[in-house]
Amino acid sequence: MKAVVYRGPNQVAVENVPDPKIERPTDAIVKITSTNICGSDLHMYEGRTDFEQGRVFGHENLGVVMEVGPAVERLKPGDWVCMPFNISCGHCKNCERGLTAYCLKANEPGIAGGAFGFADMGPWQGGQAELLRVPWADFMCLKLPPDAQERQTDYVMCADIFPTGWHATELAGMKPGDAVVIYGAGPVGLMAAHSAMIKGACSVMVVDCHSDRLKLAESIGAIAIDYAKEDPVQRIMDLTHGVGADVGCECVGYQCHDHHHHRQERPNLTMNNLINSVKFTGGIGVVGVFVPEDPNSPDELEKEGKLALDWGKLWFKGQRVATGQCNVKAYNRQLRDLIHAGRAKPSFIVSHELTLEQAPDAYQHFDVRDHGWTKVVLHPGG
Amino acid sequence: MKAVVYRGPNQVAVENVPDPKIERPTDAIVKITSTNICGSDLHMYEGRTDFEQGRVFGHENLGVVMEVGPAVERLKPGDWVCMPFNISCGHCKNCERGLTAYCLKANEPGIAGGAFGFADMGPWQGGQAELLRVPWADFMCLKLPPDAQERQTDYVMCADIFPTGWHATELAGMKPGDAVVIYGAGPVGLMAAHSAMIKGACSVMVVDCHSDRLKLAESIGAIAIDYAKEDPVQRIMDLTHGVGADVGCECVGYQCHDHHHHRQERPNLTMNNLINSVKFTGGIGVVGVFVPEDPNSPDELEKEGKLALDWGKLWFKGQRVATGQCNVKAYNRQLRDLIHAGRAKPSFIVSHELTLEQAPDAYQHFDVRDHGWTKVVLHPGG
Amino acid sequence: MKAVVYRGPNQVAVENVPDPKIERPTDAIVKITSTNICGSDLHMYEGRTDFEQGRVFGHENLGVVMEVGPAVERLKPGDWVCMPFNISCGHCKNCERGLTAYCLKANEPGIAGGAFGFADMGPWQGGQAELLRVPWADFMCLKLPPDAQERQTDYVMCADIFPTGWHATELAGMKPGDAVVIYGAGPVGLMAAHSAMIKGACSVMVVDCHSDRLKLAESIGAIAIDYAKEDPVQRIMDLTHGVGADVGCECVGYQCHDHHHHRQERPNLTMNNLINSVKFTGGIGVVGVFVPEDPNSPDELEKEGKLALDWGKLWFKGQRVATGQCNVKAYNRQLRDLIHAGRAKPSFIVSHELTLEQAPDAYQHFDVRDHGWTKVVLHPGG
Amino acid sequence: MKAVVYRGPNQVAVENVPDPKIERPTDAIVKITSTNICGSDLHMYEGRTDFEQGRVFGHENLGVVMEVGPAVERLKPGDWVCMPFNISCGHCKNCERGLTAYCLKANEPGIAGGAFGFADMGPWQGGQAELLRVPWADFMCLKLPPDAQERQTDYVMCADIFPTGWHATELAGMKPGDAVVIYGAGPVGLMAAHSAMIKGACSVMVVDCHSDRLKLAESIGAIAIDYAKEDPVQRIMDLTHGVGADVGCECVGYQCHDHHHHRQERPNLTMNNLINSVKFTGGIGVVGVFVPEDPNSPDELEKEGKLALDWGKLWFKGQRVATGQCNVKAYNRQLRDLIHAGRAKPSFIVSHELTLEQAPDAYQHFDVRDHGWTKVVLHPGG
Repeated sequence: MKAVVYRGPNQVAVENVPDPKIERPTDAIVKITSTNICGSDLHMYEGRTDFEQGRVFGHENLGVVMEVGPAVERLKPGDWVCMPFNISCGHCKNCERGLTAYCLKANEPGIAGGAFGFADMGPWQGGQAELLRVPWADFMCLKLPPDAQERQTDYVMCADIFPTGWHATELAGMKPGDAVVIYGAGPVGLMAAHSAMIKGACSVMVVDCHSDRLKLAESIGAIAIDYAKEDPVQRIMDLTHGVGADVGCECVGYQCHDHHHHRQERPNLTMNNLINSVKFTGGIGVVGVFVPEDPNSPDELEKEGKLALDWGKLWFKGQRVATGQCNVKAYNRQLRDLIHAGRAKPSFIVSHELTLEQAPDAYQHFDVRDHGWTKVVLHPGG
Repeated sequence: MKAVVYRGPNQVAVENVPDPKIERPTDAIVKITSTNICGSDLHMYEGRTDFEQGRVFGHENLGVVMEVGPAVERLKPGDWVCMPFNISCGHCKNCERGLTAYCLKANEPGIAGGAFGFADMGPWQGGQAELLRVPWADFMCLKLPPDAQERQTDYVMCADIFPTGWHATELAGMKPGDAVVIYGAGPVGLMAAHSAMIKGACSVMVVDCHSDRLKLAESIGAIAIDYAKEDPVQRIMDLTHGVGADVGCECVGYQCHDHHHHRQERPNLTMNNLINSVKFTGGIGVVGVFVPEDPNSPDELEKEGKLALDWGKLWFKGQRVATGQCNVKAYNRQLRDLIHAGRAKPSFIVSHELTLEQAPDAYQHFDVRDHGWTKVVLHPGG
Repeated sequence: MKAVVYRGPNQVAVENVPDPKIERPTDAIVKITSTNICGSDLHMYEGRTDFEQGRVFGHENLGVVMEVGPAVERLKPGDWVCMPFNISCGHCKNCERGLTAYCLKANEPGIAGGAFGFADMGPWQGGQAELLRVPWADFMCLKLPPDAQERQTDYVMCADIFPTGWHATELAGMKPGDAVVIYGAGPVGLMAAHSAMIKGACSVMVVDCHSDRLKLAESIGAIAIDYAKEDPVQRIMDLTHGVGADVGCECVGYQCHDHHHHRQERPNLTMNNLINSVKFTGGIGVVGVFVPEDPNSPDELEKEGKLALDWGKLWFKGQRVATGQCNVKAYNRQLRDLIHAGRAKPSFIVSHELTLEQAPDAYQHFDVRDHGWTKVVLHPGG
Repeated sequence: MKAVVYRGPNQVAVENVPDPKIERPTDAIVKITSTNICGSDLHMYEGRTDFEQGRVFGHENLGVVMEVGPAVERLKPGDWVCMPFNISCGHCKNCERGLTAYCLKANEPGIAGGAFGFADMGPWQGGQAELLRVPWADFMCLKLPPDAQERQTDYVMCADIFPTGWHATELAGMKPGDAVVIYGAGPVGLMAAHSAMIKGACSVMVVDCHSDRLKLAESIGAIAIDYAKEDPVQRIMDLTHGVGADVGCECVGYQCHDHHHHRQERPNLTMNNLINSVKFTGGIGVVGVFVPEDPNSPDELEKEGKLALDWGKLWFKGQRVATGQCNVKAYNRQLRDLIHAGRAKPSFIVSHELTLEQAPDAYQHFDVRDHGWTKVVLHPGG
């Protein structure tokens, strides 16, 4: 089959690779019809991780079940399904508590958490390909309703970014009526904004410097703050009568660039802005990716995965911070239902629907945040 | 009346000061019979804050109501009461949600949180004195049962450190059956250990380097870890079969000393140890004090209130951190009831019961953590 | 001043009564500009309670502060304020935990909970009058933003029915994405529907038999179910693929009438329908009023406040039920903010804005649920 | 193999039945070494249910894995395991949220919840036998530590009654410091009392009329209330200064007998006593079994599964009620850990350890609540 394969920093290729097979009785094989390029693919694409050459990208996957192993009970060929990016077994200590992002069986012993097509997240191939092997398929596959095919650009967002954006608001402890600030208007930040609106936020303020993305934020009722043009903390204070936002979401991660200093990386910039933007007793949800070490970083502390945080201020304000990858299964049923009911429409961020063959070109554009390249959905079938 | 007054770095004096008076209709005047010296008094005592000379120390106070203002309904002279260290009005946005540590009326506009006898916590005098003016007395005063007088060394712990230790376990999200690690066996750390045992922890591991305090931890069933003698992270990993503690409590604060480097201050040491000691998806509660700026610190980052945290590791492990001063009123009723029922006995940490006049000497001993000086209760009446 | 006074079953009169005065230092006097007639007023109006003749009705009140007692700090004359229907002191055990509907000081000893102008809820006069004495004014009064006057028909809903409808969804444990069923499309039921939509319900199903009220439900996106025309339980099962609603709200109370049996009262009808309409493990929130005894009821069990509930079914399904009057202060700030931000508009239910003098006529129409009389706002000023 | 088989009302026999076999790839076969007789077995034993003749009893099972199906990954022969009484698949909508008592695959369509050896809970055989087939074994089996064999009378309580007692306190919303009342001092009630003590209750009051059981309650620090000798509601009010218990647990169920009326069944007696015993705003957890219909009941309402509840009082007091069978997997890991750490010792209730052959005699004694027959553990191996 054809698949999008990593070939070293800034290089991906569409190559023929062996078809996946049922390896364990709990496996399923899924024909992929929609698979997204994600911002976290870019960390690997840029060579910032130890993602091995030859591996297949793709952790936001949707398609049709082709074959199931003998222990699979809940699925049958022909079912439309969307897979969480998390690989999770369903019966370890973490999975059984819903902490599927921290499955204890999907990675090496001592490391919690696996994913399709990801560095440091276990040996699993990705789904930017014609076929995907899904382990623990009964637990992993979210079944989709009859409108699956026609609305697949919505449903495919249930694999990662819609739940991840939602997770940001959950980690932050957002409640209806809250004033919410979101740093980052990339796909995840926009999904966090969409989530906050659905959950009854009083106001949603989105901070970024890309006008195309800020416009998308405004299109769903959020307030756009262009940090290249104004001090975001000051603006948020003004909008909240000097109190600060009730809660904040970090949707940027360690590769935060300082627009005012030649786009130099400043990994602590967003977190410290959040500490200043959020009120006393407020909560901060961090879904932007941070890494335990980053040897190639220009920042000395960041090399060892450290951030110089305004901890004294955070403590004095009595803030809470919750972090980490999204337990997709904690939310994907309800988000699927909201899409089906017409109450959510995450596809508003999709800028490009392409074939698998167009992936290399798409990676290039998306990596430099080319104007208008907000979110790419690949359709392997064409 | 007599009071313990700040006279500059490392100097306190017992002096005559004017008696407090009813200033507002909601005030009460309380005759203090028990008032503790607290670890956070030492930050001020050492001159690390901008505590003004002439101010009265003391935020852990218990005594008898002498007089009440005309709007006070719930109290009458003769009632035994214990006051939270937090000053709180009861009707601002934060107080009405139970966030009494962040009262919006007890400090300057824009700053949330007030306290008796504290730097940066509003103008309120402390209770290391014969009398104390208590504002918003109906809301502030915890009434005590008939055994108040005889058990005042237990009940006075409800003013601060027992609720604060309890708060550490709440902020950490501790649940019955958890393995709990506590960094710091000072009074607050010991109260966190006591709280964790009461709440059904499976095991409580307490890290410190003072043998007298570690012995107290063992006396209530905790496992003592002397970090001067062994690597605490490794020990915790061994005790938890390589998983890490379910939750952790920071009960040290910014004046953390590195025993292995001439007791140099290393403000990020405890937090980074906690990140390594707590499991994937675990929670950390931080009640040790951190400050927004600390100009006299030897540590460059700490001067501006920053900590170099292992943020990448924390994020990768999906940990949660909650911080801040304790909302004493959130817990003091139930802790009082547990004491009254004989289910809690926080006085186990009291090493000295002294008169007000002995306060200067007590400050000296406590400040250098003299062996055996775990907790001092002053009895102004004698 | 003029006030709406109870004169026996089905009789109210607008009479001159003495002006209220500041009686305690924590009181305020408020000039009422908007005050609603509520469904729970009808229990008293019909003589089903022991409401005393001569008492003033009215527990949904909004107006302008005229005078404050010497202990009031947060209010000044000229402030626009909305008062919760609950009378609450702010410093008893229940108030300080946010359980303001169960204040231990606003009623007789042993009874928790007080209200303006209510039978069995303490001695407090109501606000269907030109002036209202508000006790514990700092705690009680919700300050309104500059658009208070022009949007008072929205803000006045924060006194009772909007928070009460919201409370129904909270008691039910509603989460975003849920399918919600609401029995009763009176003002409270409609507010519950409005709340559920704001909080991200997947679908909201409202059961009633009055077409005008069901139309209002449809106007905000809910599904209307006319139980006079179809079996509501069957319809809900069909709409939820045989599973049942995730959560349900009881917004009817003990005076439930059985449309199919000559409108006979059947107090257990709604609860039993809910048990059948809600899924296994689902939650039910009960804000419809039930009473400890009802000697004049035609139903034998109901005379002693008993209901014949399908308890075996409820237990087998593992359902949860939470009940009781709304702690208005738990929600009124955020609802005010949602109104101010244009995200909520509870005035959509207002059918009539009348003068105080028109109250007797309005009571008559509202009591018989005259077509189109959904909600009456009285403006004492004219 | 030998098994305890139902032979009609009040008759069980130890008979030879076919050995269970691996039927699905996810099955395991477990050799049972400890299996308890439970109070809910008695409903079936007495012929109150439609339990079929020839079925094997036993839902509290512990033993050693003998054989696993090809899809089982987490278990191997020789592992000591304890099985929840709930049968649960691990991947349905309810299981993945931890609601394993309401598994959607373990019973007929439309019914949630399965169990070993139970009427109306699916086709599964019980474990009062030499061998047991465990479906979905990776998800179902709780692995035990090295002391499994020697402490099996403790660990076997993790199959049902210890988690069920714990669940009662969770459903009630019990918090540390609470005054807890428990109706019923049978094994489940005693486990609820044990749980409440571990979780930091201020006081635990246990109501029953059997002196042997009340003595066991006292042995763990609870207050025993013999309702045959005093009015339990009055006693609880006295003990709580007229306020009522903070929370209450129903551990009796529909076969409640009224000691004062010739032990006539009065299914609503316990619930109504609880409503009167628990404070305003308090919570009630109901784990005693109630059934949707009970055609043979002497009580007319009970025939159709109805209870005449003091609903008006419950509503007026703003109480919450949560019900249903225990999701054993929600608690069994932590309870196992508490046992292993020596912090819990549920075996204190065991009165008899018998062989399988002694089961018929044991059923007889236990059914009539013979003095001293609190809890029977059968050891099929001998």
